[in-house]
Order: sequence, then C-alpha cells, then structure tokens
Amino acid sequence: MTESFDALWSAILPIGRSAATGGYRRYALTEEDRLLREWFAGAAADRGLTLTEDRMGNQWAWWGDPDQRAGVVTGSHLDSVPDGGAFDGPLGVVSAFAAIDRLRDQAFEPARPIGVVNFTDEEGARFGVACAGSRVITGALPAERALGLVDRDDIPMAEAIRSAGRSPDAVGADPQTLRRVGSFVELHIEQGRSLAQLANAVAIGTSIWPHGRWRLDFPGEANHAGTTPLEDRRDAMIGFAETVLAARAIAKRQHGLATIGRVRVQPGAVNAIPSSVTAWLDARASDEPTVQRMVAEIEGMAAVHGGELTLESWTGQTIFAPGLTGRLRTALGDVPVLSTGAGHDAGILSAAGVPAAMIFVRNPTGISHSPAEWAERDDCIAGVGALATVLADLAGAEG
Amino acid sequence: MTESFDALWSAILPIGRSAATGGYRRYALTEEDRLLREWFAGAAADRGLTLTEDRMGNQWAWWGDPDQRAGVVTGSHLDSVPDGGAFDGPLGVVSAFAAIDRLRDQAFEPARPIGVVNFTDEEGARFGVACAGSRVITGALPAERALGLVDRDDIPMAEAIRSAGRSPDAVGADPQTLRRVGSFVELHIEQGRSLAQLANAVAIGTSIWPHGRWRLDFPGEANHAGTTPLEDRRDAMIGFAETVLAARAIAKRQHGLATIGRVRVQPGAVNAIPSSVTAWLDARASDEPTVQRMVAEIEGMAAVHGGELTLESWTGQTIFAPGLTGRLRTALGDVPVLSTGAGHDAGILSAAGVPAAMIFVRNPTGISHSPAEWAERDDCIAGVGALATVLADLAGAEG
Repeated sequence: MTESFDALWSAILPIGRSAATGGYRRYALTEEDRLLREWFAGAAADRGLTLTEDRMGNQWAWWGDPDQRAGVVTGSHLDSVPDGGAFDGPLGVVSAFAAIDRLRDQAFEPARPIGVVNFTDEEGARFGVACAGSRVITGALPAERALGLVDRDDIPMAEAIRSAGRSPDAVGADPQTLRRVGSFVELHIEQGRSLAQLANAVAIGTSIWPHGRWRLDFPGEANHAGTTPLEDRRDAMIGFAETVLAARAIAKRQHGLATIGRVRVQPGAVNAIPSSVTAWLDARASDEPTVQRMVAEIEGMAAVHGGELTLESWTGQTIFAPGLTGRLRTALGDVPVLSTGAGHDAGILSAAGVPAAMIFVRNPTGISHSPAEWAERDDCIAGVGALATVLADLAGAEG
Repeated sequence: MTESFDALWSAILPIGRSAATGGYRRYALTEEDRLLREWFAGAAADRGLTLTEDRMGNQWAWWGDPDQRAGVVTGSHLDSVPDGGAFDGPLGVVSAFAAIDRLRDQAFEPARPIGVVNFTDEEGARFGVACAGSRVITGALPAERALGLVDRDDIPMAEAIRSAGRSPDAVGADPQTLRRVGSFVELHIEQGRSLAQLANAVAIGTSIWPHGRWRLDFPGEANHAGTTPLEDRRDAMIGFAETVLAARAIAKRQHGLATIGRVRVQPGAVNAIPSSVTAWLDARASDEPTVQRMVAEIEGMAAVHGGELTLESWTGQTIFAPGLTGRLRTALGDVPVLSTGAGHDAGILSAAGVPAAMIFVRNPTGISHSPAEWAERDDCIAGVGALATVLADLAGAEG
C-alpha cells in the first residue's frame, strides 16, 4: 500500500509545479489539467477500473458496475489555487487509488461498486466559481451560467472547453451520473490546526460553514497622477482600501472570516488614477445569519464610496448525513470530528441529497493554499488506511 | 496645413486602440509600437526627411544635416499608458510634421536643421521606468539597468528588443545623437485645466515638478481564506490598504500628490490570504523637500506593516532654460506660462544640458491618461501654428 501511494504521489507531483515559487498552477482546461487527467486515466487503467466522464468532464473510475447498484465513491479534485500546495485535492485522489490497492491486497470483494472521482475546477481559480464541476452536474450551477463565466483573459468557459477538445453542448445537470453515487467520502488535507495538537492523524468532517464569494466594483475616473489635484480626483483605490479595512474590522466583531485576496485595477498604470477597482470578497461564518450580516455591513461601507457588491457564489451550511458520518465514526473508532470553513465538492453533493462525509488528514502547520502546505507521509498513509477501512465497511457485504 | 494635420492624425488614430474601452494600448516594443514606428517612418519619407535611429531606438527625422550644425528638434512620443488617450504624445509628433508642412507652404528656408523625434517608451507602461528612451541616451538610465527591467510577464527589456529585431548590444548613452540637438521644443496636450478657463489655446511650459516612482512591497503568508482565524493571519492586503489611505492623507497635508495606481497581489486567489502585495507609489510636489518628506512619511506607515519602499525612478525639479523659454514668449506673444506636475522627455533632455521648452495645447476637461482625454481640433491647429512660429524663429536666419 505504501509503495502504491508513493508511486502515485511521485508521478503527479511535478505536474503544474512552478519552479519559481514551488507552488502549483493547475487550472481547469489548461495543458496542466490535460496532464492531470491523463495521470488519472492511467491510474484507472493500471487498476482495470472503468473510466467514464460525465457531462461536465468530471472523471469517474469504477470498480464494478454502478448502473447495477449505486456505488461508494471517494476522490477529490486535482486543480489548485494559484501557487497552491501539493495536497489540497490530489491527496484525496491519490489516497482513493491507494485505498483500492490496499483492499485488493486484502483480497476484499466489494458487494457494491467502488468509484474514484476527479471533480473538475474545484478551486474556481480560473473561472471564479468554486466547485464548478460538482455544481454543474447537480444543477446548482446552470449550464448557461457556467459556460458564460470568463477567465482573466476574458476567455469564456465554453471556448476553453472547446479548446480542450470537448463539447460545451454536453454541459449540464447529469442525474444519470449522480444516480450511480450511493454515497461519497472525500479525503482531504485539513486546512487548519485542529489535528496538529492531537495524537490523531485523521478526523471525520461533519459540517461545512456557510460561505460565499462577492464581487466588489469601485468606480473612479482615470486621470493623470501628476496633474490632477486631490480634490478633483475620483480615485477608485480609496474606497477599495477603506472597504478592505472595514471588512477586517466587521469580521472580527462578528467572529466570522472576511478575505479580499484578488484585485483588478484599471487602467493599472503607475501614473494614472484608477478608474475602477474590482475586488473579490470571501466571507464565511459558523452560521448563515452571521455571514449575511457581515456582508451587508461591508456592502454598506463600499456603498459610501459608490462601490457595488454582487453575489458570485453561495453555499449554505452543510451538515453531512448523520447516518453516514455515524457509520464512519463506528468504523474508525475514536477519531475527532471537525467542522470546517472550507468548501468542498462533498458539500455540493450533500446539498443535492447525496449522503456525503469527509476524512481530514493532519496538517502540522494548518497552512493551505500556499506552497508551504504540508502533511507528513506517515499521516497520509494513515489516511489511506482510514479510507480503506471506510470503503470496506460501506461497500462490504453488509453495506 | 490643416489638411496635413488631419491626414496624419487620422492615419495614426486606429493604431493600438482598444475596441472595448476606446483607450490606447501602445506599449514599447510590441506589434502596436512597430506599426507606430512605421507610421513615423512613412511620414518622414513623405516629406523627404532623413530617418535615423539612435542607440536606444528613438526615431529622428531630419530636414537638413544636424552633423553640420546642431538643429532645432521638436516631437514627443507615440506610446501610451494602459487605456490612455489619443493626444498624450502623438499630438506632439503629428504637430511636428504638420508644422514642417506649414513652414514649407510658406517657402521657409531653415538656416539650421529641423528635426522630429519619436522618443521610445516615454510612459514606461511596459517596463516601469518613464522616459526610458531619453533617459538611456542621456546616460540618466544605465544600459544594464534598462535592459534588465522586466514587464508583467517577466520578459526583460533586452529580450523584447531582440524580439523586435533590434540588438540590445547597441543600447546605451548616445552623445553623438545628443550633439545634434541644439534645442528641443516639445508640444504636448495640457494635463490639467489651467488653459480651460482662459482665452488661449496654447501655453508655454517653464518647469516640471520633481517627481518619482517607488515600489512598495508588503509581506504576508498565503493561507486558506476559509479556515485561518483572523488572529493567525499575516494578510499583506491589510498593510497595503492602510498605506493607501495614509498616502492620501499625507499628500493632502503636504499639498503634494500621491497616487497608487498599480497593484499586484500574490497568489491572487479569491480564497487565499495574500502572501504579498506589491504596489507602486507616484509622488510629486512643487519642490523636492516636500516630495521627500511625503515619501518618508508614507514609508513609515508601510514599515508598520512590514512594508518596504524602493525607489524606481526619480526626476528632480526641471526649470527649462530661461533663454529658450524667453525666446518662445517673444515669438508667441501674450501666452500664459505653466508649471506642470507631469514628466516629459523635455525634462530629461533639459537635465542633460539640452536647452528645452514645452508648448501646451488646451485640454477642456483636464483629463489625461484616460480614453476621455480630449482637445478641440481648432486648439490642435493653433498648436501647430504656434509650433511653426517657434521653429521658424529658432531655425531662421537669425537663429
């Protein structure tokens, strides 16, 4: 089992890694994405799994026939945020294949099919909407909206799909694919430090905080930085800066999280007053009313400067199916249970009525979405063991 | 004369114009730049002027032989800021050719050579240093530093020069070219509203405010926006926002100008805490001590957040040669004189000991560095007339 984990891990490790930062740039529908998909197809073929792609291009590798009986699915995603870490996403997919190898080493015979999934565009790094792959097949993201999303170069997703040799016409809700998923267990690196202080390498995820993304547009008037008196300026940067500071203060007061991590300034010249600043707000909290209250306050501050706020995506609170998480707790014995502020495809499937759960693997620093993201190999191997135990339980004769 | 102005103007107008914004994207050493240089070469050839290029690729079109006797040079630049206006730069070059046409219509015989120049990369929009063309040939910008400047895609200027079919080996101070310039008169659209209230279409520029560009680097630590508690964050955006607001307040108190118009955020993902924010500060005032005081205060505020400030370019106060500006005042009669906060190649040449002066053409709104930049055609034609009068005076028998 450890050999198969290491072989899978070392094969995927170089793909999309920036020599400059050591971080990953694995964006949907790019050349790196194509290489990652080939890696997935190769791992499936090596194991004699049946590879299919759904209407959104999510990859599924099946051990057994899920059209006969709905299966137990595991997996995650292979894309990254800009300069992301190696573990966020790929650890779940690598562990899925390695867990199947372990079950076969143990001569396990599944009574239900077992599937491995690679959800496309989970981070939304290219087109701005997270979990696009799972949102489209569940119908949470309508096809027309997905296809019209544009990347930083104003390339619509429809065109990117075409450039990748696929057809945008197929994109849409895919109930046939979802019917095959009896339950979904996503293994993921923890993106916090809850496990770092404990003796446990893994935890069970029971819920996801409500969270969303909003676009903030601040208006201004381009003019020469060297000749325009301060009192004549309409400088979009000022309202933006006020709103950054207000968002931090509001989140602190409301015990939530607010982050502004992406900004676009027009015209973007050193010697021109900004005619517009567009920024993206990520806001989360343990309950929905708190998020809504925070965002309303931030919107109020932006409005003072003429700024407008537009919802780009929203995921309500996810509480994973108690029957499934209870079963994981029984199978894994005494492991911690966690709530997380990070969104995942498991949350999207859960909202669509698929029983879903998560297994988290210890992150010693809590750092994620960074080249510094890290998990110890022993903990990763423990994660594979836990996942194999859960799959054996769910797909076993009594499943 | 008006026909020749209109023909020149309409030929250059479409080059590098963005259909989306109506603004210009004419950056050094790009395809647009090549088209603009061909336009310049064509205009020179149509008039039988001798075209030369200096060691930095600045284009010179000569009526007469400046190696026999130093000439009177006019002209400006053809590049733009991102989404800049049609006038900033090109008006000076178009007016130069149109003024020569006018002198020839009047059967004027120059006693000194008359030259038209197109300075390369005046705005510094691509490589970050303004007036790179004039700074390099005067030696103010060492060749090694210029060639090592990188654009947003990390392409060094040396490579861009090579890609444009030129040799970076030639780049450097060019005293032979400068010896040909007996005096330089740059016509430019005004970038303010001083003339807008007056009956005059043109003014004489007598000085340029001291000004500079500084890079601000704010450190942070990338991490997941959904799982990192506020108290554990090192978010580079916070210090940046504080510094934006401080810079505005400091400039107001000191009666100077401070602008932050360009920002780069790493990793730049909606759901990642910024690991670094790099921003550029443009600061100017009527005297050098005020600029230095402002910048020191802004540096102090940035340092509170771990931010570092690095000088990228500096231009001390320019007072144009009083002998030359006096002569323009005599030739043009009762026109206003102006000081400006905007840098120009005329300032760089002046600092290198070349007698230089400027003619400003009225800007009804004062807007510049924007698609909305505008000058009335009658005012442009009046500018050509004023420039022809000045050239006739300086290059005439008594010159």
